[in-house]
Amino acid sequence: MHVQLNPLGAMDLLSQLEVDQLKQHAHSETFRLFRNCCLAVLNVGSHTDSSAEIYDQYKDFAVNLVARERGIKIELFNPPLSAFVDGELIKGIHEHLFAVLRDILFYHTRLGADTKQLDLHNSEHITHTVFDILRNAQVIAPGATPNMIVCWGGHSINETEYKYTKEVGYQLGLRGLDICTGCGPGAMKGPMKGATIGHAKQRISSGRYLGLTEPSIIAAEPPNPIVNELVILPDIEKRLEAFVRSAHGIIIFPGGAGTAEELLYLLGIMLHEDNRQQVLPVILTGPKQSAAYFTELTSFIEKTLGKDALNLFEVIIDDPAAVAQKLKQGCQAVRQYRKSAGDAYHFNWTLQIDDDFQHPFAPTHQNMASLDLHLNQDKARLAANLRRAFSGIVAGNVKDEGIKAIAQQGPFILSGEPALMELMDTLLEAFVAQGRMKLPGSKYVPCYQISR
Amino acid sequence: MHVQLNPLGAMDLLSQLEVDQLKQHAHSETFRLFRNCCLAVLNVGSHTDSSAEIYDQYKDFAVNLVARERGIKIELFNPPLSAFVDGELIKGIHEHLFAVLRDILFYHTRLGADTKQLDLHNSEHITHTVFDILRNAQVIAPGATPNMIVCWGGHSINETEYKYTKEVGYQLGLRGLDICTGCGPGAMKGPMKGATIGHAKQRISSGRYLGLTEPSIIAAEPPNPIVNELVILPDIEKRLEAFVRSAHGIIIFPGGAGTAEELLYLLGIMLHEDNRQQVLPVILTGPKQSAAYFTELTSFIEKTLGKDALNLFEVIIDDPAAVAQKLKQGCQAVRQYRKSAGDAYHFNWTLQIDDDFQHPFAPTHQNMASLDLHLNQDKARLAANLRRAFSGIVAGNVKDEGIKAIAQQGPFILSGEPALMELMDTLLEAFVAQGRMKLPGSKYVPCYQISR
Amino acid sequence: MHVQLNPLGAMDLLSQLEVDQLKQHAHSETFRLFRNCCLAVLNVGSHTDSSAEIYDQYKDFAVNLVARERGIKIELFNPPLSAFVDGELIKGIHEHLFAVLRDILFYHTRLGADTKQLDLHNSEHITHTVFDILRNAQVIAPGATPNMIVCWGGHSINETEYKYTKEVGYQLGLRGLDICTGCGPGAMKGPMKGATIGHAKQRISSGRYLGLTEPSIIAAEPPNPIVNELVILPDIEKRLEAFVRSAHGIIIFPGGAGTAEELLYLLGIMLHEDNRQQVLPVILTGPKQSAAYFTELTSFIEKTLGKDALNLFEVIIDDPAAVAQKLKQGCQAVRQYRKSAGDAYHFNWTLQIDDDFQHPFAPTHQNMASLDLHLNQDKARLAANLRRAFSGIVAGNVKDEGIKAIAQQGPFILSGEPALMELMDTLLEAFVAQGRMKLPGSKYVPCYQISR
Amino acid sequence: MHVQLNPLGAMDLLSQLEVDQLKQHAHSETFRLFRNCCLAVLNVGSHTDSSAEIYDQYKDFAVNLVARERGIKIELFNPPLSAFVDGELIKGIHEHLFAVLRDILFYHTRLGADTKQLDLHNSEHITHTVFDILRNAQVIAPGATPNMIVCWGGHSINETEYKYTKEVGYQLGLRGLDICTGCGPGAMKGPMKGATIGHAKQRISSGRYLGLTEPSIIAAEPPNPIVNELVILPDIEKRLEAFVRSAHGIIIFPGGAGTAEELLYLLGIMLHEDNRQQVLPVILTGPKQSAAYFTELTSFIEKTLGKDALNLFEVIIDDPAAVAQKLKQGCQAVRQYRKSAGDAYHFNWTLQIDDDFQHPFAPTHQNMASLDLHLNQDKARLAANLRRAFSGIVAGNVKDEGIKAIAQQGPFILSGEPALMELMDTLLEAFVAQGRMKLPGSKYVPCYQISR
Repeated sequence: MHVQLNPLGAMDLLSQLEVDQLKQHAHSETFRLFRNCCLAVLNVGSHTDSSAEIYDQYKDFAVNLVARERGIKIELFNPPLSAFVDGELIKGIHEHLFAVLRDILFYHTRLGADTKQLDLHNSEHITHTVFDILRNAQVIAPGATPNMIVCWGGHSINETEYKYTKEVGYQLGLRGLDICTGCGPGAMKGPMKGATIGHAKQRISSGRYLGLTEPSIIAAEPPNPIVNELVILPDIEKRLEAFVRSAHGIIIFPGGAGTAEELLYLLGIMLHEDNRQQVLPVILTGPKQSAAYFTELTSFIEKTLGKDALNLFEVIIDDPAAVAQKLKQGCQAVRQYRKSAGDAYHFNWTLQIDDDFQHPFAPTHQNMASLDLHLNQDKARLAANLRRAFSGIVAGNVKDEGIKAIAQQGPFILSGEPALMELMDTLLEAFVAQGRMKLPGSKYVPCYQISR
Repeated sequence: MHVQLNPLGAMDLLSQLEVDQLKQHAHSETFRLFRNCCLAVLNVGSHTDSSAEIYDQYKDFAVNLVARERGIKIELFNPPLSAFVDGELIKGIHEHLFAVLRDILFYHTRLGADTKQLDLHNSEHITHTVFDILRNAQVIAPGATPNMIVCWGGHSINETEYKYTKEVGYQLGLRGLDICTGCGPGAMKGPMKGATIGHAKQRISSGRYLGLTEPSIIAAEPPNPIVNELVILPDIEKRLEAFVRSAHGIIIFPGGAGTAEELLYLLGIMLHEDNRQQVLPVILTGPKQSAAYFTELTSFIEKTLGKDALNLFEVIIDDPAAVAQKLKQGCQAVRQYRKSAGDAYHFNWTLQIDDDFQHPFAPTHQNMASLDLHLNQDKARLAANLRRAFSGIVAGNVKDEGIKAIAQQGPFILSGEPALMELMDTLLEAFVAQGRMKLPGSKYVPCYQISR
Repeated sequence: MHVQLNPLGAMDLLSQLEVDQLKQHAHSETFRLFRNCCLAVLNVGSHTDSSAEIYDQYKDFAVNLVARERGIKIELFNPPLSAFVDGELIKGIHEHLFAVLRDILFYHTRLGADTKQLDLHNSEHITHTVFDILRNAQVIAPGATPNMIVCWGGHSINETEYKYTKEVGYQLGLRGLDICTGCGPGAMKGPMKGATIGHAKQRISSGRYLGLTEPSIIAAEPPNPIVNELVILPDIEKRLEAFVRSAHGIIIFPGGAGTAEELLYLLGIMLHEDNRQQVLPVILTGPKQSAAYFTELTSFIEKTLGKDALNLFEVIIDDPAAVAQKLKQGCQAVRQYRKSAGDAYHFNWTLQIDDDFQHPFAPTHQNMASLDLHLNQDKARLAANLRRAFSGIVAGNVKDEGIKAIAQQGPFILSGEPALMELMDTLLEAFVAQGRMKLPGSKYVPCYQISR
Repeated sequence: MHVQLNPLGAMDLLSQLEVDQLKQHAHSETFRLFRNCCLAVLNVGSHTDSSAEIYDQYKDFAVNLVARERGIKIELFNPPLSAFVDGELIKGIHEHLFAVLRDILFYHTRLGADTKQLDLHNSEHITHTVFDILRNAQVIAPGATPNMIVCWGGHSINETEYKYTKEVGYQLGLRGLDICTGCGPGAMKGPMKGATIGHAKQRISSGRYLGLTEPSIIAAEPPNPIVNELVILPDIEKRLEAFVRSAHGIIIFPGGAGTAEELLYLLGIMLHEDNRQQVLPVILTGPKQSAAYFTELTSFIEKTLGKDALNLFEVIIDDPAAVAQKLKQGCQAVRQYRKSAGDAYHFNWTLQIDDDFQHPFAPTHQNMASLDLHLNQDKARLAANLRRAFSGIVAGNVKDEGIKAIAQQGPFILSGEPALMELMDTLLEAFVAQGRMKLPGSKYVPCYQISR
């Protein structure tokens, strides 16, 4: 099978020079990344979260770029058939493919050139880059009032939890709130599905379902085609920054290591002195059956980051309508705050994010082993280090490079202050016991080892 | 609780004279009907199909019309709270209430006056009325190409069947097809829910979910708020005519007496000499587990209406994508046919519907007993009579007046040629055995008695 | 030449019954009226205001209605070529033709039937009819805030005055105000042309240019194709009522007998006790050179209707920006008033219009001669009678029937109290001297005779 | 007077980094240019074409940029009052100011950084820059079919010629064609005004009035607010390239040195071997009274560029409808050609433009004196040199720097082959005699001297 796709969105209008530059990529490493992301997007609906497995299954899949004066086309060879309806690509997936082209090849071409002017060690320049990528993707709506709810949570959750995320999404949709998630299945898909029905009942035809992802996770968590705005940020840290600067409210559903990473990132930032005045409603929620999960998680937070950190969020068990109501009110508070602070509604410029949370962390065995894990350090710094630890575990669980590294060198070794190690161990074992580390279907073999 | 609602849609622009005429209804019998339909619309999501029970539960619910120069408002007292989100009526239900006002009070006010010019015994005038009601409801889109799929099927179906109707709706939505149903739960709701997701994936924000109902059934089958175009036709026969003249394709899912009524109506019409050239794809479909149902039904059709009738539809078991593909192709054939015949796309004017199918049938005990039920008659006439028999059973099962009549006078007596009676008995008993007559929760007591 | 035109607007969706009823008109007197109005609309840009002359020039022009299930088409034979661009009818004129079909044939078909329910001697029913015609023409915008400025003035004005009306229109357009006029050339066209440029500079792409006309005047004052909403009211009185109930502000430019008729109608109504609270800004304006005209006119008003009448309007000489500013502010006052009175913004329901101003006046020689013209009567009644006198003069000047009657029976005789006759004579002679009675190109022969 | 203006268009969404960079300009030379262009835009409607005079009149006018997290505002001190309606800036002018900010400060900030990657001596990079500026200004519509007519001609033309340009614009508008001009008065304004009325009659509410200008000419030829898309290209050569690559047809009205420059540029390019297949309709047109002008101009072309050059355009005298018809047909031919060549509709990528026509020419006394003006050279090269000569004369006539240079050093000296010098002298004297060099109101003193 072989199809050619016309350009959509921002890829619609390229100059000859830009088309030529895109073509020059054809044999580069970036192009391989592009090809893999295309495959991930096309393979939506599959039931594995192992990138390696997917890449293996579609070895003969290929992508090509076709250039003419008129513009650029994407050509697919042997794509997964599930993306097609009667031989025609689903429109949502078609859009996602050009989002991938835009964010992987095109933007990075431009950004590559820009590096001469941008200093990616400079905090202000990093934030500019995050904004520029979002703007280039046309997902920033200057006029809109605050209503974007970021939903975090596991890709592997049980049926009761999944239904609960749908119900919360439905209640958010009924209140005119939009949804932003990390694009994958589970807690990232449920809220969007629910909101679609809620929006339909309220006759909202412009509902936004924003997906933020990054190249190394996209295969394990491919964007559901309900995602009608897709952005691929260059790395985890920029993706996290995009989440928190775009959010007008945040929900955290049950999840595993990735969810813990997100929560630690958020708390680490919010604990910063300069963010004391920030208004950003955060709610941890799940069905009755998941109550224990939240007890465990908050206990871990309290014992590591302290009581202050508990004031930064609220836990609501088994009450989707209450969650949605609080966030609706919270959005109004956000609006007032931004207005009084002279800040934009569409991007939280005044939020202070320290270097510690902006610089990419590469989860090599060495970096993982060197993490400074002891309780007696600045809380924000501790949050940053814990965030890195969980980030590494996610990589070892589902990311292509991480899996390969574990296969070659054995599990990551995490070591540090015994009391802290014990807390981590308890939490991680709970994740494993509850099946939150990987999609069901295989026995989970930990990619880490806690050394006490 | 007490709320006032601003007018929407066609009710937005009334003259003082029209407002005054509406107010004069306040104590009429029609107003009671209006009040009951409002209650039905507000009570969506409840789990009973007994109109009587609903009316009983909300005895203190009241409606009032508030008139000013500026226009008319609907005032609600003690409405069901489930229709509200944080104290505000769901937009879809708000629209439905004004559709009820438009079609029950306003249109019939105008139609009442019009009767001097319209002769409702005249076939052409009846068809004009059906069209006029649809046009007044702004559900006729003159420019659109054929893509409206009418879905018929039971309000009480099992979970497997319900999921199947959703999957079919999803496949229709992926192909850009719109949905029209009778508004209630079960097979009337599933296809709309599925299509909503299909449309979202194809980025179709203008998907139509058309609900056609009539005053006596609306309480038992309240419109789901996904229905974004609601029309209340004055009686069953005009509702059926609206279905077949609006349809570009028809799906029949498993169902009970009401579904049998619809199928008999359709076949009776299509068997007419003048409709030989008509192009109208009809598909009976369900999951594997429902295969027996369709065997039974087609056997009944063959033995009553003959082999020719079997050529008017196709049975597809357990293949949602194939159903949707056939109807997509069918819509193109409809387009070509209408174009060549000079007929409109939005309303099938050239379809011949005999008086027998247009005149209202009142399901009194006497009328039911007098039905001419024997096999040796014109097939279309037989279809018309069988249609009336099933229509009466629907009334006895779920309609307010029917239930009261049964309570007072005992079951309807159906009598006729023994062979035919036997066929009917078999079919009806299967419906009962499969739980298709009433929503689960009570033991079904037949409202009819077959006398052989 | 011969073209067929597809239906537009409300004519897009007719039932077979309605199409049949339209066809039945083909040889009726109404159809002749329809044909003449079509001709007038097509003949826009011609330089005569004599209906007779136009009808004469296009004797072989014919119209036909083509009916199919799909709908109705208008067929033109030998139409004026000026309406076409490279063989295709100008879109604006195409729309106007279907407005003519809608308002002359279709609406009156429906209204004809409706007469059984409507009593056109009843004031409330007349107002309903005016509203119903406007609503059916889709020119009533329920949500819009008050901004419709009605501009009255002569069809035959000099170049300086014409430029002035354009400049006023430009200033109105710059302030986001819309324009409604009587459709013809001169003071009816200038404000629309000016507003088009003003709207363009303010990036208003939804500017409204509403033309209200009636069958007997349309040939003499054909709608300029800038008119993007055209309504043909059945007679002068309903047209005048449509003007004043649609207006949020009124400008009166220099004009002749027709303009005097409009001003007398307006003042007669506004003098009514019940209209004391009404808020409706009225401005008489023209260039410096026309100052004398307004002195004459206000003097006539003062001497006939008294000093009170002078408080109902303001005269502004040679200051287009001031006129537009006052009306902009006036529209805000109108909004406040309507809101506090519970009245609609789009139609002034609370304005009291007496029977005297609603019932059609047929300007026969006998009716003209019998007018009760003396000063010592109720001011509103006097205004009504004077209005009729000027209305008759307009008919004698430019309307087909009027011209024929004058040709056969000589000038209308107007008689009454000598002081009043003298006032009228002075005013009318000024109109003649200033060339306001007829378009230039012929010597004006008065169609009336003042008998003292 | 002092106002703050909210950002519009692409300036709506800036990052903090970009806002900071803009602020850093505040005391730069570019900022002075920005301030002057703002003044030009605000001063629309003034009756002088002397930039110096305008700058002198508004010495106390100042611009400031106000930065907050939310974005950037333009602050004006003592702006010309004619740009305001009741204290509010006309929307069209408001848009133009942010177009100036976008193209002068913002784009050049980015371009400045980009220079490291762009080589502005490289032809492909220059073309990319032209495209990038147009795209950044959001004036490239990827889906649209060819309908953009570029109109060139004098800013100083007589009343008959001006009316003629309006009539041509009207005929273009009636045929759904859009207009692109150089933004100033005269032949640059007339076609837009006419097209506005033509579009209104055809109910086209999305008519495009594209103005392309450059910083040194904008004061002398300020954009009329009908211009609804304004782009300021960095220099004359890029502006000319933007014209010819955006055009689907070109009209040349009577004009002076600037118009001659444009025609020579166009012919020089079209004479290129590689452009033989190009389809681009070019029409020279004017009223009857201007026939002599075109005779003179074509005679000059023939004697300098040869007979072949005459085949590249057509002269039509006094027939606006014929001009519009030819261009309508021409646009269809352009469409076919682009389709077959695989080129875009919105930008003519395949048109070959040689370096000679792309590199900026600075009209200093020395450069003017050194121009290689003799007949015996390659025709394209001769066209390029003649283009430069006329470009210099425009600068000496109306541009700030040019006027100053002439004031200090006396007229430019043009020397070369006597036969060619004679031809130029004749043509230029005709321009002077016909008042085409400067707006009326002052005696024209030539800024050049032909040395033979």
